[in-house]
Amino acid sequence: MGKTITEKVLDDHLVEGELTPGEEIGIEIDQVLTQDTTGTMVWLQFEALGLDEVQTELAAQYCDHQTYQFDFKNTDDHRFLRSAAGTYGAHFSRPGNGICHNVHKENFAAPGKTLLGSDSHTPTPGGLGQLAIGAGGLDITVAMGGGAYYVEMPEVVNIRLEGELGEWATAKDVILELLRRLSVKGGVGKVFEYTGPGVETLSVPERTTITNMGTELGATSSIFPTDERTKEWLEEVDRPEDYVDLQPDDDAEYADEIVVDLSEIEPMIAEPSMPDNVVPVREAAGQSVEQVMIGSCTNGAYEDILPAAKMLEGREVNKKTEMIIAPASKQASEMLAREGWTAELMAAGVNFSEATCGACIGIGHVPGSDTVSLRTFNRNFEGRSGIEDDSVFLCSPEVATAAAIKGEIVDPRDLADELGDMEDPGFELGRGYDRHDVDLIAPDEAVDDELVKGPNIGDVPLKDPLESNLEGEVLLRMDDNITTDHIIPATSDILKFRSNVPKLSEFTLSRVDESFAQRALDADGGFLVAGENYGQGSSREHAALCPMYLGVEGVLAQSFARIHKANLFNFGLVPLTIDEDDYERIEQGDNVEIVDDVGAGVRSGQDEFTFRVNDEWEGTAHLDASEREREILAAGGKLSWTKQQAQDGSGAAPADD
Amino acid sequence: MGKTITEKVLDDHLVEGELTPGEEIGIEIDQVLTQDTTGTMVWLQFEALGLDEVQTELAAQYCDHQTYQFDFKNTDDHRFLRSAAGTYGAHFSRPGNGICHNVHKENFAAPGKTLLGSDSHTPTPGGLGQLAIGAGGLDITVAMGGGAYYVEMPEVVNIRLEGELGEWATAKDVILELLRRLSVKGGVGKVFEYTGPGVETLSVPERTTITNMGTELGATSSIFPTDERTKEWLEEVDRPEDYVDLQPDDDAEYADEIVVDLSEIEPMIAEPSMPDNVVPVREAAGQSVEQVMIGSCTNGAYEDILPAAKMLEGREVNKKTEMIIAPASKQASEMLAREGWTAELMAAGVNFSEATCGACIGIGHVPGSDTVSLRTFNRNFEGRSGIEDDSVFLCSPEVATAAAIKGEIVDPRDLADELGDMEDPGFELGRGYDRHDVDLIAPDEAVDDELVKGPNIGDVPLKDPLESNLEGEVLLRMDDNITTDHIIPATSDILKFRSNVPKLSEFTLSRVDESFAQRALDADGGFLVAGENYGQGSSREHAALCPMYLGVEGVLAQSFARIHKANLFNFGLVPLTIDEDDYERIEQGDNVEIVDDVGAGVRSGQDEFTFRVNDEWEGTAHLDASEREREILAAGGKLSWTKQQAQDGSGAAPADD
Repeated sequence: MGKTITEKVLDDHLVEGELTPGEEIGIEIDQVLTQDTTGTMVWLQFEALGLDEVQTELAAQYCDHQTYQFDFKNTDDHRFLRSAAGTYGAHFSRPGNGICHNVHKENFAAPGKTLLGSDSHTPTPGGLGQLAIGAGGLDITVAMGGGAYYVEMPEVVNIRLEGELGEWATAKDVILELLRRLSVKGGVGKVFEYTGPGVETLSVPERTTITNMGTELGATSSIFPTDERTKEWLEEVDRPEDYVDLQPDDDAEYADEIVVDLSEIEPMIAEPSMPDNVVPVREAAGQSVEQVMIGSCTNGAYEDILPAAKMLEGREVNKKTEMIIAPASKQASEMLAREGWTAELMAAGVNFSEATCGACIGIGHVPGSDTVSLRTFNRNFEGRSGIEDDSVFLCSPEVATAAAIKGEIVDPRDLADELGDMEDPGFELGRGYDRHDVDLIAPDEAVDDELVKGPNIGDVPLKDPLESNLEGEVLLRMDDNITTDHIIPATSDILKFRSNVPKLSEFTLSRVDESFAQRALDADGGFLVAGENYGQGSSREHAALCPMYLGVEGVLAQSFARIHKANLFNFGLVPLTIDEDDYERIEQGDNVEIVDDVGAGVRSGQDEFTFRVNDEWEGTAHLDASEREREILAAGGKLSWTKQQAQDGSGAAPADD
Repeated sequence: MGKTITEKVLDDHLVEGELTPGEEIGIEIDQVLTQDTTGTMVWLQFEALGLDEVQTELAAQYCDHQTYQFDFKNTDDHRFLRSAAGTYGAHFSRPGNGICHNVHKENFAAPGKTLLGSDSHTPTPGGLGQLAIGAGGLDITVAMGGGAYYVEMPEVVNIRLEGELGEWATAKDVILELLRRLSVKGGVGKVFEYTGPGVETLSVPERTTITNMGTELGATSSIFPTDERTKEWLEEVDRPEDYVDLQPDDDAEYADEIVVDLSEIEPMIAEPSMPDNVVPVREAAGQSVEQVMIGSCTNGAYEDILPAAKMLEGREVNKKTEMIIAPASKQASEMLAREGWTAELMAAGVNFSEATCGACIGIGHVPGSDTVSLRTFNRNFEGRSGIEDDSVFLCSPEVATAAAIKGEIVDPRDLADELGDMEDPGFELGRGYDRHDVDLIAPDEAVDDELVKGPNIGDVPLKDPLESNLEGEVLLRMDDNITTDHIIPATSDILKFRSNVPKLSEFTLSRVDESFAQRALDADGGFLVAGENYGQGSSREHAALCPMYLGVEGVLAQSFARIHKANLFNFGLVPLTIDEDDYERIEQGDNVEIVDDVGAGVRSGQDEFTFRVNDEWEGTAHLDASEREREILAAGGKLSWTKQQAQDGSGAAPADD
């Protein structure tokens, strides 16, 4: 049977499992990327691993979310990340150098390679044939430690592109059309693979706009084949050697096929407040627009901004509309400046922002009350712009610029009065990319060789392997439905300590019992007891990490929420289920001892354990865990397990040097 | 007797008093400027005046402090300011167009005119012969309403410049040298007037660097004569018609003379954490530098950034040093881009910020912990950068750039290894300024004709003229030494409501009695009673405005702090002194009635008033007030008084149309 592109790349990297949709597979990771909001914890965990250097072919640390540095913690984070990259052998992209996805695309992304990134838009370089997947921070750490990445084998869906885009229609409109058809849940558990005669009509920057926003479909990833256009683009970025030919076999089998006729695409817009709330621009026309922003990892390339520049040459932004351009990389900024477009755009009334994610995550240029903002970004979830009840529309740079000129939403095809006989500026590939090492520091040019931690950056503890004997006090007895928000509150005054586990741990379960954290530290070990559905809510890893830091060794609950239970394994806390009668009998302050040899039992597959309370009565607890989860638990958590694997030279991990 | 430049300009604008140092004079104001953090209250007060339009020759509203718009309140403020400028006839400079002082200098500042601005660096255009003074918001409002500005006649000090600047010495080093000699208190109550043969060696942008930072000397203003260099510069900004010849008379008498030999000036630096903590750069050399910033109203002009660009052409910023350039105006940004310097600087590793005050007031690019930041700004007060215990140095763009290249503080004369045989790039005047109306909206092109207020922008109440009868409850009886912080706390969670008097008023005196604000509103009038030194501390106008809003009509205290007493007059609250015995007898909740006709008494100069408490006993209260203060009080405060003057066509106010 023939293979899809996805299957070919996965096959090349498979270390565990089979390529059967829904089954867990383990794959080797070639490249990792992380950014400044998720990166600090990734590197603190890597430090805890105790390895000397990154084990993947390439790792890159970007600073893109908090580049305005409006708190010293941001600046300290950037300095820590630079020191971590230098110490462990990753590339470091300085704040201001641009958004991870764009800088990675320009400098490192390569067809046929796997990329794991701690950012949801990691699939961006799928547009040039890289299989790129977004994941949690601990997964990145493990991959950097040489461990495989485990994921459910997705279904591969064929998006067959036919025809060619017409006047004023863009790649952004293609992905908006897919969102209109499939919804934000349409891609869950899937990889979208683009094929068909329409592919060759799209350049790499256009393709990456589409793969970038596959994330909004909920897809695991999106990928294009490689061809002459890929080759052309890799030559422009001075990396022709990275080209490999990547095509699906003629008899590849897809789980589904969706046909998009590019010639039927027209300018689209996502209305507030969901990326799939898509209509043709003409249906939204006439609404007054107070703010227009061009940028983000979706549409922040030189090639995305160029049409806006051409449209504004010799024209002016409407006096009631503020227009801000935030190029996605300094390379894009520099090219625009070098070609003279920056001066033209400024003369037209445009403000330039630093190359940053910024406004896309509500940092800067928050819209005013009761105003409309048109953005070329990928998400318009309510409140994401930084103000409740916002009114954010998503569209192409061409539609955004048309609105900036007119002061209201307008299809550029209906802007003849303002644009004169100007035709669709169309797509033009940037020429003469310059790469400057000063902003993208290679490991062998690193500034630092040891970690530099500001006062808000702590250590991540590494747990010892599970011991034979588990005994301790019931530190807290809780009711049903305790959420991860109960365990670690998500309010910004607390989460700002996310890089500082010792400090953050002080807030552990404070919503249930303010004295808990101190009591747990004083007790030097112990158990949590809870009713049904313990740990429901977010996937926040800190809800397991912080109790672990405080010395909690296990949780006895009537039942666990799925993701939190996985996190308990990952951080080496034993999750045991108990029945209602025993739950009712246990009281806070009781002494609990697991009678069996826990370490041996977990390793051997034992699923029933006897526990004794206050030397007075006994009960039975159950451990429901896969073989891999047992290994992780026995090792003291996923970090310890990865460290052990690296030391053993086992699994996917190359030998530690 | 001959006149100084200062005396000539003041004489032309004098409406009250005589030019005797220390005496109060009233002067007519030609131009006003305000910015986004002080502007909202200025316009709310102007709204309360009830006038149809600005009465000064020119008014300009700039948006420069909060241009990153981190909070919707910033964006709403900008929209409100645009609407106020449009409604009342001021120019509106859009966020991103630059810092008020620089944009004003480029577009409006004119020799011989008076300028009043609600920002402490308003004296900047003194470099081209404008007499410019910084003042509080209410003073700006009154000036816009046609009222005179009252100020103590300053001493005029002659700074005699001789010789010419040597290699790598700049205008910044001249003002740093003056700070070294005179200290931050050296200019209090003075205008510094620059004369001598050295003047003609300095261009207008160099002169404005010096006058700008006269504020750090504590000076009321600083001013240069006009000459061929002024003419040349006004031609470059396309306003040659604004030139007037302005020289001191040969026999002008100065209060003091200070001689500066420019040829002896060498590169200087202000060490942390005071602008007068100045040493030659060589004395501070060798310290590692993590951040370099070029910009601000002091050194953010095209001409300031150009030397940095020349120094960095073909070179790179040190990898351990972040270098950010924030041009002071979009005009500067655009010229740099048009000339190709922006691309060169980006290639060298520089980040560009929007044209904003930004980092100079701790908004963005906060230094990391325990790091050194070199800035071309005007202030390095501890913590101003946004982090406690900061280490901020002030210097010229040349010294800053040298540090960015070397990664440590270095005198550029000692940087031969890195700079090769590069000589001092020297000063070069920018050519071909472009002015774009799109970012600086003239009153006749205004977008709005009515005020647009976001939910955080309230109204300012206007008080009625003082009535005959004053009677009410003692709403609060306080001890000695109540501060303005007690009256209106200055914490950021409260001061963020500074544009919202109704909301802010809820916090009035809450540190003394949380129930006060509601009780005052319910009582519909009443008195405050306090011991000695009531209202000590900051000059915060809200400490009078908020009690006024809540209905307080007078304060009976044993004594008042000077500035707060002036604010009580300004907002129409009667400040009466009582003796200790009476203070001791009065209790909270008592009913107090002023027996005399208060309105008539205040107007007629009466200084003793009898008050009756609970119809049981009587005491005597004293009113110590100048004639002008009595007029203001009788009118219901300075706003009402100004409104009345404008309606009467009396005083300095042109007739209302």
